[in-house]
Amino acid sequence: MSNIKLVIEYDGTNYGGWHRQKNAVTVQGVVEDALCRLTGEEINLIGASRTDSGVHALGQVANFHTNCTIPPDRYAYALNSLLPMDIRIRESLAVPESFHARYSAIGKRYRYSIYNRIPGTALYRNISYNVYQPLDRAKMAEACRYLIGTHDFSAFRAAGSSAKTSVRTIDQAEITGTEDMIYFLIKGNGFLYNMVRIIAGTLIDIGKGK
Amino acid sequence: MSNIKLVIEYDGTNYGGWHRQKNAVTVQGVVEDALCRLTGEEINLIGASRTDSGVHALGQVANFHTNCTIPPDRYAYALNSLLPMDIRIRESLAVPESFHARYSAIGKRYRYSIYNRIPGTALYRNISYNVYQPLDRAKMAEACRYLIGTHDFSAFRAAGSSAKTSVRTIDQAEITGTEDMIYFLIKGNGFLYNMVRIIAGTLIDIGKGK
Repeated sequence: MSNIKLVIEYDGTNYGGWHRQKNAVTVQGVVEDALCRLTGEEINLIGASRTDSGVHALGQVANFHTNCTIPPDRYAYALNSLLPMDIRIRESLAVPESFHARYSAIGKRYRYSIYNRIPGTALYRNISYNVYQPLDRAKMAEACRYLIGTHDFSAFRAAGSSAKTSVRTIDQAEITGTEDMIYFLIKGNGFLYNMVRIIAGTLIDIGKGK
Repeated sequence: MSNIKLVIEYDGTNYGGWHRQKNAVTVQGVVEDALCRLTGEEINLIGASRTDSGVHALGQVANFHTNCTIPPDRYAYALNSLLPMDIRIRESLAVPESFHARYSAIGKRYRYSIYNRIPGTALYRNISYNVYQPLDRAKMAEACRYLIGTHDFSAFRAAGSSAKTSVRTIDQAEITGTEDMIYFLIKGNGFLYNMVRIIAGTLIDIGKGK
């Protein structure tokens, strides 16, 4: 049996998030269906991260086990011919039996894009969050510095989080961007449920002077 | 009678280009219809540039004449409430009677985005052109230098161009970009029919080593 790793890019606009659901079209569901057509097997695709509805991925990592004998690097080509254009398999390769996309992850990197201009953006409307009020980027950048390190992030955890510990290590947290777009980049060994979104919301409040 | 200038951003994905057509939904047509609802007049919107189907704009300039007494800066707000989210009016203001979006233009700037990676991109698929074969950016940048200045660009004119002269002045022509995305930026006093597209195609050929 082979263990195959996929690196997946997707535009989450038209999906109900990553995780397979009964009542929504999801990225996991669509890729699993394509894998089923390709291999003739019922495939359980393990994703590194459950992204929410409307969230995109440039490099979601996933893996699955199969008895199919397609050469590992050919899964990318074969899947891309079956998948819609808003989901692309960047690469496929064989990994050791022990590899598990979620448990083997040693870090994750998120980018939160804030479009900071009236009246919002037509061209980037699906890949950014509009904030009309001018944001103080210097204050946001300063606040980022306090995130770096190993801390108890329980204040940034959504209700319903079931993680055993709320201690996480953040390696990178910074504000970059262009004239109208502000990027909040954050990289760490793991994130609590909704932690990135709550931190981004807090940074926006700081940028507004709250 | 007022002369109102609009600066318009649009995602051209779902439109048959800028120019009003009988058999296609176009950006000019949609904005003119919104202006008609707003003013109760039949409005003729003059655009600085006719963009092709699928081409986007970050700052298309247009103007129109009206007897309507809405304060000039309020057109942007009023139109944005009537327009679909893929068309946004960035600003509206009163301009002198003599202002004409096309004839008064002293320069235009285009950006051509090339996504240079297999298997293409899910997230940026509507705002870039996919080239799978690796492109030599240094060669493309070198070729750009020959474009700058005042030249006869008849070699880069599409059949059917009706311009009186094919001499144009290019102020800026450069290659920038990120890891996977190559931007070709070009700025000049005017462009012949399809000139930017033909130049971009030539640069891609150069990047491929042709």
